[in-house]
Amino acid sequence: MRIAYRGTRYHGFQRQPNAVTVQGELEKQLSRVLNGITTVYGCSRTDTGVHANEFVLHFYTEREIRCKNLVRAMNGYLPEDISVLSAEDTDPEFHARFECRGKEYLYRIHCHESKNPFLSDLAYHYRRRLDLDKIRAAAQAVVGTHDFHSFCAQAMPETDCVRTIYGTEIRCSGADVRIYIRGNGFLYNMVRIFVGTLLDINEGVFPADAMPEILAAKNRLAAGRTAMAHGLYLNRVFYTDAVMTESDSPNHEI
Amino acid sequence: MRIAYRGTRYHGFQRQPNAVTVQGELEKQLSRVLNGITTVYGCSRTDTGVHANEFVLHFYTEREIRCKNLVRAMNGYLPEDISVLSAEDTDPEFHARFECRGKEYLYRIHCHESKNPFLSDLAYHYRRRLDLDKIRAAAQAVVGTHDFHSFCAQAMPETDCVRTIYGTEIRCSGADVRIYIRGNGFLYNMVRIFVGTLLDINEGVFPADAMPEILAAKNRLAAGRTAMAHGLYLNRVFYTDAVMTESDSPNHEI
Repeated sequence: MRIAYRGTRYHGFQRQPNAVTVQGELEKQLSRVLNGITTVYGCSRTDTGVHANEFVLHFYTEREIRCKNLVRAMNGYLPEDISVLSAEDTDPEFHARFECRGKEYLYRIHCHESKNPFLSDLAYHYRRRLDLDKIRAAAQAVVGTHDFHSFCAQAMPETDCVRTIYGTEIRCSGADVRIYIRGNGFLYNMVRIFVGTLLDINEGVFPADAMPEILAAKNRLAAGRTAMAHGLYLNRVFYTDAVMTESDSPNHEI
Repeated sequence: MRIAYRGTRYHGFQRQPNAVTVQGELEKQLSRVLNGITTVYGCSRTDTGVHANEFVLHFYTEREIRCKNLVRAMNGYLPEDISVLSAEDTDPEFHARFECRGKEYLYRIHCHESKNPFLSDLAYHYRRRLDLDKIRAAAQAVVGTHDFHSFCAQAMPETDCVRTIYGTEIRCSGADVRIYIRGNGFLYNMVRIFVGTLLDINEGVFPADAMPEILAAKNRLAAGRTAMAHGLYLNRVFYTDAVMTESDSPNHEI
Protein backbone atom coordinates (compact mmCIF):
# COMPACT_ATOMS: atom_id res chain seq x y z
CA MET A 1 0.00 0.00 0.00
CA ARG A 2 1.32 3.44 -0.92
CA ILE A 3 0.26 6.23 1.38
CA ALA A 4 1.02 9.92 1.96
CA TYR A 5 0.63 11.80 5.20
CA ARG A 6 1.03 15.18 6.80
CA GLY A 7 3.04 14.43 9.93
CA THR A 8 2.10 17.50 11.99
CA ARG A 9 -0.42 15.82 14.30
CA TYR A 10 1.52 12.57 14.73
CA HIS A 11 4.27 11.33 16.98
CA GLY A 12 5.96 9.81 13.97
CA PHE A 13 5.01 6.71 12.05
CA GLN A 14 5.66 3.95 14.55
CA ARG A 15 2.94 2.73 16.89
CA GLN A 16 3.39 3.83 20.53
CA PRO A 17 1.25 3.02 23.54
CA ASN A 18 0.20 6.54 24.59
CA ALA A 19 0.67 8.69 21.52
CA VAL A 20 -1.15 9.28 18.24
CA THR A 21 0.93 7.79 15.42
CA VAL A 22 0.38 7.16 11.72
CA GLN A 23 0.76 3.41 12.17
CA GLY A 24 -1.74 3.41 15.02
CA GLU A 25 -4.30 5.33 12.96
CA LEU A 26 -3.77 3.11 9.90
CA GLU A 27 -4.09 -0.13 11.85
CA LYS A 28 -7.26 1.10 13.54
CA GLN A 29 -8.98 1.83 10.23
CA LEU A 30 -7.52 -1.19 8.42
CA SER A 31 -8.80 -3.47 11.17
CA ARG A 32 -12.24 -1.94 10.66
CA VAL A 33 -12.19 -2.37 6.88
CA LEU A 34 -10.79 -5.92 7.04
CA ASN A 35 -12.90 -6.85 10.04
CA GLY A 36 -9.98 -8.19 12.09
CA ILE A 37 -6.90 -6.90 13.87
CA THR A 38 -4.25 -6.08 11.27
CA THR A 39 -0.60 -5.11 11.77
CA VAL A 40 1.13 -3.00 9.11
CA TYR A 41 4.86 -3.11 8.33
CA GLY A 42 6.23 0.22 7.17
CA CYS A 43 9.23 0.91 4.92
CA SER A 44 10.67 3.31 7.46
CA ARG A 45 10.11 5.20 10.67
CA THR A 46 9.59 8.92 10.52
CA ASP A 47 10.00 11.35 13.41
CA THR A 48 7.33 13.54 14.98
CA GLY A 49 6.22 16.21 12.53
CA VAL A 50 7.94 14.64 9.50
CA HIS A 51 5.75 14.18 6.40
CA ALA A 52 5.58 11.58 3.66
CA ASN A 53 4.78 12.19 0.01
CA GLU A 54 5.23 8.48 -0.49
CA PHE A 55 5.43 5.76 2.13
CA VAL A 56 5.09 2.03 1.44
CA LEU A 57 3.78 -0.60 3.84
CA HIS A 58 2.60 -4.18 3.68
CA PHE A 59 0.22 -6.32 5.73
CA TYR A 60 -1.32 -9.76 5.65
CA THR A 61 -5.01 -10.50 5.45
CA GLU A 62 -7.22 -13.54 4.86
CA ARG A 63 -10.05 -11.26 3.84
CA GLU A 64 -10.77 -11.09 0.12
CA ILE A 65 -11.14 -7.50 -0.98
CA ARG A 66 -10.34 -5.79 -4.29
CA CYS A 67 -7.49 -3.31 -4.01
CA LYS A 68 -9.58 -0.52 -5.51
CA ASN A 69 -12.28 -1.02 -2.88
CA LEU A 70 -9.70 -1.18 -0.11
CA VAL A 71 -8.26 2.20 -1.18
CA ARG A 72 -11.71 3.73 -1.28
CA ALA A 73 -12.82 2.32 2.06
CA MET A 74 -9.59 3.36 3.79
CA ASN A 75 -9.80 6.90 2.43
CA GLY A 76 -13.38 7.06 3.67
CA TYR A 77 -12.32 6.17 7.23
CA LEU A 78 -8.90 7.84 7.53
CA PRO A 79 -8.55 11.44 8.75
CA GLU A 80 -7.76 14.25 6.30
CA ASP A 81 -4.03 14.08 6.95
CA ILE A 82 -3.47 10.46 5.85
CA SER A 83 -4.25 9.35 2.31
CA VAL A 84 -4.02 5.95 0.67
CA LEU A 85 -2.65 6.49 -2.84
CA SER A 86 -2.78 2.91 -4.13
CA ALA A 87 -2.74 -0.73 -3.09
CA GLU A 88 -1.71 -3.94 -4.80
CA ASP A 89 -1.59 -7.65 -4.09
CA THR A 90 1.96 -8.81 -3.61
CA ASP A 91 4.15 -11.84 -3.13
CA PRO A 92 3.69 -13.11 0.45
CA GLU A 93 7.49 -12.83 0.79
CA PHE A 94 7.48 -9.09 0.10
CA HIS A 95 8.63 -6.91 3.00
CA ALA A 96 8.23 -3.13 2.77
CA ARG A 97 11.32 -2.44 4.88
CA PHE A 98 13.74 -5.26 4.07
CA GLU A 99 13.22 -5.08 0.33
CA CYS A 100 13.48 -1.34 0.11
CA ARG A 101 16.52 -0.52 -2.08
CA GLY A 102 16.62 3.18 -1.47
CA LYS A 103 14.77 6.32 -0.50
CA GLU A 104 14.56 9.93 -1.46
CA TYR A 105 14.03 12.62 1.14
CA LEU A 106 12.93 16.17 0.42
CA TYR A 107 13.57 19.13 2.71
CA ARG A 108 11.43 22.20 2.02
CA ILE A 109 12.55 25.71 2.91
CA HIS A 110 10.49 28.89 2.58
CA CYS A 111 13.32 31.36 2.06
CA HIS A 112 11.83 34.83 2.51
CA GLU A 113 11.67 37.64 5.04
CA SER A 114 7.89 37.09 5.45
CA LYS A 115 6.39 33.74 6.41
CA ASN A 116 4.20 31.82 3.96
CA PRO A 117 0.79 31.42 5.64
CA PHE A 118 0.14 28.20 3.69
CA LEU A 119 3.37 26.47 4.70
CA SER A 120 3.62 26.99 8.45
CA ASP A 121 3.98 23.27 9.26
CA LEU A 122 5.15 22.25 5.81
CA ALA A 123 8.41 24.11 5.22
CA TYR A 124 11.17 25.57 7.36
CA HIS A 125 10.99 29.36 7.35
CA TYR A 126 14.49 30.70 6.67
CA ARG A 127 14.90 34.48 6.69
CA ARG A 128 18.52 34.76 5.43
CA ARG A 129 19.77 34.75 1.86
CA LEU A 130 20.72 31.31 0.56
CA ASP A 131 23.88 31.07 -1.52
CA LEU A 132 22.67 28.29 -3.81
CA ASP A 133 26.01 27.72 -5.57
CA LYS A 134 27.73 27.35 -2.23
CA ILE A 135 25.26 24.88 -0.71
CA ARG A 136 24.91 22.93 -3.98
CA ALA A 137 28.67 22.35 -4.02
CA ALA A 138 28.66 21.40 -0.33
CA ALA A 139 25.75 18.98 -0.83
CA GLN A 140 27.55 17.35 -3.75
CA ALA A 141 30.40 16.35 -1.42
CA VAL A 142 28.29 13.72 0.37
CA VAL A 143 27.51 11.82 -2.85
CA GLY A 144 29.16 8.40 -2.87
CA THR A 145 29.81 5.78 -0.21
CA HIS A 146 30.90 7.27 3.11
CA ASP A 147 30.87 6.63 6.82
CA PHE A 148 28.13 9.01 7.98
CA HIS A 149 28.90 8.81 11.70
CA SER A 150 29.07 12.62 11.86
CA PHE A 151 25.52 12.80 10.53
CA CYS A 152 23.93 10.41 12.98
CA ALA A 153 22.30 11.32 16.27
CA GLN A 154 23.04 8.86 19.08
CA ALA A 155 25.31 6.47 17.15
CA MET A 156 27.56 4.17 19.17
CA PRO A 157 31.18 4.21 17.94
CA GLU A 158 30.73 0.64 16.72
CA THR A 159 27.51 1.37 14.78
CA ASP A 160 27.81 0.71 11.04
CA CYS A 161 27.24 4.15 9.54
CA VAL A 162 28.38 3.42 5.99
CA ARG A 163 25.73 4.48 3.50
CA THR A 164 25.69 5.33 -0.20
CA ILE A 165 24.21 8.61 -1.40
CA TYR A 166 23.23 8.42 -5.08
CA GLY A 167 22.50 12.08 -5.58
CA THR A 168 21.53 15.42 -4.11
CA GLU A 169 19.71 18.23 -5.81
CA ILE A 170 18.66 21.73 -4.80
CA ARG A 171 15.81 23.37 -6.69
CA CYS A 172 14.71 26.92 -6.19
CA SER A 173 11.65 28.75 -7.48
CA GLY A 174 11.22 32.14 -5.87
CA ALA A 175 11.05 31.68 -2.11
CA ASP A 176 10.47 27.94 -2.48
CA VAL A 177 13.68 25.95 -1.99
CA ARG A 178 13.71 22.15 -2.14
CA ILE A 179 16.65 19.98 -1.17
CA TYR A 180 16.51 16.37 -2.42
CA ILE A 181 18.77 13.56 -1.28
CA ARG A 182 18.64 9.96 -2.52
CA GLY A 183 20.49 7.04 -1.00
CA ASN A 184 20.42 3.36 -0.11
CA GLY A 185 19.73 4.07 3.54
CA PHE A 186 19.61 6.86 6.10
CA LEU A 187 20.69 7.02 9.74
CA TYR A 188 18.73 8.55 12.60
CA ASN A 189 18.38 12.32 11.91
CA MET A 190 20.82 12.04 9.01
CA VAL A 191 18.90 14.24 6.56
CA ARG A 192 18.10 16.85 9.20
CA ILE A 193 21.77 17.07 10.27
CA PHE A 194 22.80 17.19 6.58
CA VAL A 195 20.44 20.12 5.92
CA GLY A 196 21.41 21.86 9.17
CA THR A 197 25.06 21.57 8.16
CA LEU A 198 24.27 23.09 4.73
CA LEU A 199 22.59 26.03 6.48
CA ASP A 200 25.59 26.41 8.80
CA ILE A 201 27.86 26.44 5.74
CA ASN A 202 25.57 29.04 4.13
CA GLU A 203 25.95 31.23 7.22
CA GLY A 204 29.73 30.82 7.38
CA VAL A 205 29.74 28.78 10.59
CA PHE A 206 31.80 26.29 8.56
CA PRO A 207 33.88 27.06 5.47
CA ALA A 208 32.37 26.26 2.05
CA ASP A 209 34.55 23.17 1.60
CA ALA A 210 34.03 21.77 5.12
CA MET A 211 31.94 18.71 4.13
CA PRO A 212 34.80 16.21 3.49
CA GLU A 213 36.43 17.08 6.82
CA ILE A 214 33.11 16.76 8.64
CA LEU A 215 32.63 13.31 7.12
CA ALA A 216 36.21 12.31 7.98
CA ALA A 217 35.75 13.29 11.65
CA LYS A 218 33.17 10.50 12.16
CA ASN A 219 31.85 12.48 15.09
CA ARG A 220 28.43 14.07 15.44
CA LEU A 221 30.02 17.14 17.08
CA ALA A 222 31.90 17.93 13.85
CA ALA A 223 28.67 18.48 11.88
CA GLY A 224 26.16 21.33 12.12
CA ARG A 225 22.79 21.79 13.74
CA THR A 226 19.78 19.52 13.23
CA ALA A 227 17.27 21.19 10.89
CA MET A 228 13.69 21.26 12.16
CA ALA A 229 11.47 18.24 11.51
CA HIS A 230 8.53 20.02 9.86
CA GLY A 231 10.46 20.75 6.62
CA LEU A 232 11.25 17.06 6.06
CA TYR A 233 9.40 14.67 3.75
CA LEU A 234 10.03 11.05 2.90
CA ASN A 235 9.51 11.72 -0.80
CA ARG A 236 9.98 8.44 -2.64
CA VAL A 237 10.70 4.80 -1.79
CA PHE A 238 12.47 2.53 -4.28
CA TYR A 239 12.18 -1.23 -4.70
CA THR A 240 14.31 -1.46 -7.85
CA ASP A 241 17.72 0.08 -8.41
CA ALA A 242 16.86 1.40 -11.85
CA VAL A 243 14.64 4.31 -10.85
CA MET A 244 16.89 5.63 -8.12
CA THR A 245 18.81 7.98 -10.36
CA GLU A 246 15.71 9.72 -11.69
CA SER A 247 14.93 12.99 -10.05
CA ASP A 248 11.31 13.41 -11.13
CA SER A 249 8.94 13.75 -8.28
CA PRO A 250 5.58 12.11 -7.97
CA ASN A 251 2.44 14.04 -8.78
CA HIS A 252 1.20 14.16 -5.23
CA GLU A 253 4.15 16.31 -4.16
CA ILE A 254 2.86 19.84 -3.69
CA MET B 1 0.43 46.96 2.71
CA ARG B 2 0.44 43.67 0.81
CA ILE B 3 -0.57 40.65 2.83
CA ALA B 4 -1.34 36.94 2.28
CA TYR B 5 -3.54 34.78 4.44
CA ARG B 6 -4.88 31.30 4.84
CA GLY B 7 -8.62 31.87 5.30
CA THR B 8 -9.50 28.59 7.04
CA ARG B 9 -9.79 29.97 10.58
CA TYR B 10 -11.46 33.25 9.64
CA HIS B 11 -15.01 34.39 9.02
CA GLY B 12 -13.80 36.25 5.96
CA PHE B 13 -11.81 39.44 5.76
CA GLN B 14 -14.29 42.01 7.04
CA ARG B 15 -14.46 42.91 10.73
CA GLN B 16 -17.52 41.50 12.55
CA PRO B 17 -18.54 41.99 16.17
CA ASN B 18 -18.53 38.35 17.33
CA ALA B 19 -16.35 36.49 14.85
CA VAL B 20 -12.65 36.11 14.18
CA THR B 21 -11.83 37.93 10.93
CA VAL B 22 -8.63 38.83 9.11
CA GLN B 23 -9.37 42.54 9.42
CA GLY B 24 -10.02 42.21 13.15
CA GLU B 25 -6.74 40.36 13.66
CA LEU B 26 -4.77 42.85 11.54
CA GLU B 27 -6.22 45.89 13.28
CA LYS B 28 -5.50 44.41 16.68
CA GLN B 29 -1.82 43.89 15.90
CA LEU B 30 -1.44 47.09 13.89
CA SER B 31 -2.87 49.08 16.80
CA ARG B 32 -0.24 47.45 19.01
CA VAL B 33 2.64 48.21 16.66
CA LEU B 34 1.49 51.78 15.96
CA ASN B 35 0.44 52.36 19.55
CA GLY B 36 -3.04 53.64 18.70
CA ILE B 37 -6.30 52.33 17.30
CA THR B 38 -5.91 51.87 13.55
CA THR B 39 -8.55 51.02 10.96
CA VAL B 40 -7.50 49.22 7.78
CA TYR B 41 -9.25 49.54 4.41
CA GLY B 42 -9.03 46.38 2.33
CA CYS B 43 -9.16 46.01 -1.47
CA SER B 44 -11.94 43.46 -1.21
CA ARG B 45 -14.00 41.29 1.08
CA THR B 46 -13.42 37.58 1.05
CA ASP B 47 -15.82 34.92 2.34
CA THR B 48 -15.28 32.50 5.21
CA GLY B 49 -12.56 30.00 4.31
CA VAL B 50 -11.36 31.89 1.22
CA HIS B 51 -7.59 32.52 1.02
CA ALA B 52 -5.46 35.34 -0.34
CA ASN B 53 -2.09 35.01 -2.06
CA GLU B 54 -2.13 38.77 -2.39
CA PHE B 55 -4.42 41.26 -0.68
CA VAL B 56 -3.81 45.02 -0.53
CA LEU B 57 -4.97 47.37 2.21
CA HIS B 58 -4.25 50.90 3.34
CA PHE B 59 -4.44 52.76 6.64
CA TYR B 60 -3.55 56.13 8.10
CA THR B 61 -1.10 56.74 10.90
CA GLU B 62 0.63 59.69 12.52
CA ARG B 63 3.29 57.40 13.88
CA GLU B 64 6.64 57.53 12.10
CA ILE B 65 7.88 54.04 11.38
CA ARG B 66 10.01 52.66 8.56
CA CYS B 67 8.10 50.28 6.29
CA LYS B 68 10.69 47.56 6.73
CA ASN B 69 10.34 47.71 10.52
CA LEU B 70 6.56 47.74 10.26
CA VAL B 71 6.61 44.54 8.19
CA ARG B 72 8.93 42.88 10.66
CA ALA B 73 6.96 43.95 13.74
CA MET B 74 3.65 42.89 12.24
CA ASN B 75 4.98 39.48 11.24
CA GLY B 76 6.26 39.06 14.77
CA TYR B 77 2.80 39.67 16.25
CA LEU B 78 0.49 38.14 13.63
CA PRO B 79 -0.54 34.47 13.82
CA GLU B 80 0.99 31.90 11.43
CA ASP B 81 -1.87 32.18 8.94
CA ILE B 82 -1.52 35.89 8.15
CA SER B 83 1.68 37.27 6.64
CA VAL B 84 2.67 40.82 5.72
CA LEU B 85 4.56 40.63 2.42
CA SER B 86 5.50 44.30 2.03
CA ALA B 87 4.52 47.84 2.95
CA GLU B 88 5.08 51.21 1.37
CA ASP B 89 4.29 54.85 2.03
CA THR B 90 1.64 56.10 -0.31
CA ASP B 91 -0.23 59.17 -1.46
CA PRO B 92 -2.78 60.12 1.25
CA GLU B 93 -5.42 59.96 -1.50
CA PHE B 94 -4.74 56.30 -2.26
CA HIS B 95 -7.62 53.94 -1.52
CA ALA B 96 -7.03 50.18 -1.67
CA ARG B 97 -10.59 49.43 -2.82
CA PHE B 98 -11.59 52.40 -4.97
CA GLU B 99 -8.35 52.54 -6.91
CA CYS B 100 -8.19 48.84 -7.58
CA ARG B 101 -8.37 48.33 -11.37
CA GLY B 102 -8.75 44.59 -11.39
CA LYS B 103 -8.23 41.31 -9.62
CA GLU B 104 -7.19 37.80 -10.36
CA TYR B 105 -8.77 34.86 -8.55
CA LEU B 106 -7.39 31.36 -8.47
CA TYR B 107 -9.44 28.25 -7.79
CA ARG B 108 -7.43 25.17 -6.82
CA ILE B 109 -8.69 21.63 -7.43
CA HIS B 110 -7.00 18.42 -6.33
CA CYS B 111 -8.26 16.10 -9.07
CA HIS B 112 -7.54 12.55 -7.92
CA GLU B 113 -9.29 9.53 -6.47
CA SER B 114 -7.25 9.89 -3.24
CA LYS B 115 -7.18 13.07 -1.18
CA ASN B 116 -3.99 15.11 -0.84
CA PRO B 117 -3.15 15.22 2.90
CA PHE B 118 -1.37 18.57 2.46
CA LEU B 119 -4.25 20.35 0.74
CA SER B 120 -7.31 19.50 2.83
CA ASP B 121 -8.32 23.15 3.40
CA LEU B 122 -6.41 24.52 0.42
CA ALA B 123 -7.93 22.86 -2.64
CA TYR B 124 -11.27 21.33 -3.57
CA HIS B 125 -10.98 17.55 -3.78
CA TYR B 126 -12.62 16.42 -7.03
CA ARG B 127 -12.72 12.67 -7.67
CA ARG B 128 -14.02 12.66 -11.27
CA ARG B 129 -12.05 13.04 -14.47
CA LEU B 130 -11.77 16.60 -15.72
CA ASP B 131 -12.15 17.14 -19.46
CA LEU B 132 -9.73 20.05 -19.69
CA ASP B 133 -10.48 20.92 -23.33
CA LYS B 134 -14.17 21.08 -22.56
CA ILE B 135 -13.91 23.30 -19.49
CA ARG B 136 -11.22 25.50 -21.08
CA ALA B 137 -13.58 26.25 -23.96
CA ALA B 138 -16.47 26.86 -21.57
CA ALA B 139 -14.35 29.19 -19.42
CA GLN B 140 -13.29 31.15 -22.49
CA ALA B 141 -16.92 32.07 -23.16
CA VAL B 142 -17.11 34.44 -20.18
CA VAL B 143 -14.18 36.57 -21.43
CA GLY B 144 -15.33 40.05 -22.42
CA THR B 145 -17.92 42.45 -21.02
CA HIS B 146 -21.13 40.73 -19.95
CA ASP B 147 -24.02 41.05 -17.54
CA PHE B 148 -23.10 38.46 -14.89
CA HIS B 149 -26.48 38.37 -13.16
CA SER B 150 -26.55 34.57 -13.52
CA PHE B 151 -23.26 34.37 -11.61
CA CYS B 152 -24.25 36.47 -8.65
CA ALA B 153 -25.76 35.19 -5.40
CA GLN B 154 -28.50 37.44 -4.00
CA ALA B 155 -28.52 40.08 -6.76
CA MET B 156 -31.60 42.28 -7.04
CA PRO B 157 -32.95 42.50 -10.61
CA GLU B 158 -31.85 46.15 -10.74
CA THR B 159 -28.27 45.47 -9.51
CA ASP B 160 -25.60 46.45 -12.02
CA CYS B 161 -23.95 43.12 -12.81
CA VAL B 162 -21.93 44.22 -15.86
CA ARG B 163 -18.29 43.25 -15.45
CA THR B 164 -15.35 42.74 -17.80
CA ILE B 165 -13.36 39.51 -17.69
CA TYR B 166 -9.89 39.95 -19.20
CA GLY B 167 -8.91 36.34 -19.29
CA THR B 168 -9.30 32.85 -17.90
CA GLU B 169 -6.72 30.12 -17.79
CA ILE B 170 -6.71 26.51 -16.64
CA ARG B 171 -3.38 24.93 -15.76
CA CYS B 172 -2.91 21.30 -14.90
CA SER B 173 0.08 19.47 -13.49
CA GLY B 174 -0.75 15.93 -12.45
CA ALA B 175 -3.58 16.07 -9.93
CA ASP B 176 -3.08 19.79 -9.38
CA VAL B 177 -5.57 21.87 -11.40
CA ARG B 178 -5.63 25.66 -11.18
CA ILE B 179 -8.33 27.86 -12.68
CA TYR B 180 -7.43 31.55 -13.03
CA ILE B 181 -9.84 34.36 -13.82
CA ARG B 182 -8.95 38.04 -14.18
CA GLY B 183 -11.40 40.87 -14.41
CA ASN B 184 -12.19 44.47 -13.50
CA GLY B 185 -14.56 43.42 -10.73
CA PHE B 186 -16.36 40.42 -9.29
CA LEU B 187 -19.85 39.98 -7.85
CA TYR B 188 -20.78 38.13 -4.68
CA ASN B 189 -19.88 34.41 -5.16
CA MET B 190 -19.17 35.05 -8.86
CA VAL B 191 -15.97 33.00 -9.08
CA ARG B 192 -17.41 30.14 -7.04
CA ILE B 193 -20.54 29.97 -9.24
CA PHE B 194 -18.32 30.22 -12.35
CA VAL B 195 -16.20 27.26 -11.18
CA GLY B 196 -19.26 25.29 -10.04
CA THR B 197 -20.79 25.81 -13.50
CA LEU B 198 -17.57 24.57 -15.15
CA LEU B 199 -17.75 21.42 -13.01
CA ASP B 200 -21.43 20.96 -13.92
CA ILE B 201 -20.48 21.29 -17.60
CA ASN B 202 -17.69 18.75 -17.04
CA GLU B 203 -20.23 16.32 -15.59
CA GLY B 204 -22.75 16.85 -18.40
CA VAL B 205 -25.34 18.62 -16.22
CA PHE B 206 -25.14 21.36 -18.86
CA PRO B 207 -24.03 20.95 -22.49
CA ALA B 208 -20.45 21.97 -23.37
CA ASP B 209 -21.62 25.19 -25.08
CA ALA B 210 -24.06 26.27 -22.36
CA MET B 211 -22.12 29.29 -21.09
CA PRO B 212 -23.54 31.95 -23.51
CA GLU B 213 -27.09 30.88 -22.74
CA ILE B 214 -26.43 30.89 -19.01
CA LEU B 215 -25.09 34.44 -19.29
CA ALA B 216 -28.06 35.51 -21.45
CA ALA B 217 -30.57 34.19 -18.90
CA LYS B 218 -29.48 36.82 -16.33
CA ASN B 219 -30.84 34.54 -13.65
CA ARG B 220 -28.89 32.78 -10.91
CA LEU B 221 -31.02 29.66 -11.38
CA ALA B 222 -29.66 29.25 -14.93
CA ALA B 223 -26.08 28.73 -13.69
CA GLY B 224 -24.56 25.76 -11.86
CA ARG B 225 -23.69 25.01 -8.28
CA THR B 226 -21.49 27.21 -6.06
CA ALA B 227 -18.02 25.63 -5.72
CA MET B 228 -16.76 25.31 -2.14
CA ALA B 229 -14.97 28.27 -0.57
CA HIS B 230 -11.77 26.52 0.51
CA GLY B 231 -10.45 26.17 -3.07
CA LEU B 232 -10.66 29.91 -3.72
CA TYR B 233 -7.80 32.42 -3.51
CA LEU B 234 -7.67 36.11 -4.21
CA ASN B 235 -4.45 35.75 -6.19
CA ARG B 236 -3.45 39.21 -7.40
CA VAL B 237 -4.72 42.77 -7.13
CA PHE B 238 -3.98 45.32 -9.87
CA TYR B 239 -3.63 49.07 -9.58
CA THR B 240 -2.53 49.65 -13.17
CA ASP B 241 -4.17 48.31 -16.32
CA ALA B 242 -0.89 47.25 -17.91
CA VAL B 243 -0.18 44.19 -15.82
CA MET B 244 -3.65 42.73 -15.96
CA THR B 245 -3.02 40.68 -19.08
CA GLU B 246 0.02 38.93 -17.65
CA SER B 247 -0.63 35.50 -16.29
CA ASP B 248 2.49 35.01 -14.20
CA SER B 249 1.78 34.34 -10.61
CA PRO B 250 3.61 35.81 -7.67
CA ASN B 251 6.29 33.84 -5.91
CA HIS B 252 4.32 33.39 -2.74
CA GLU B 253 1.73 31.26 -4.53
CA ILE B 254 2.31 27.62 -3.60
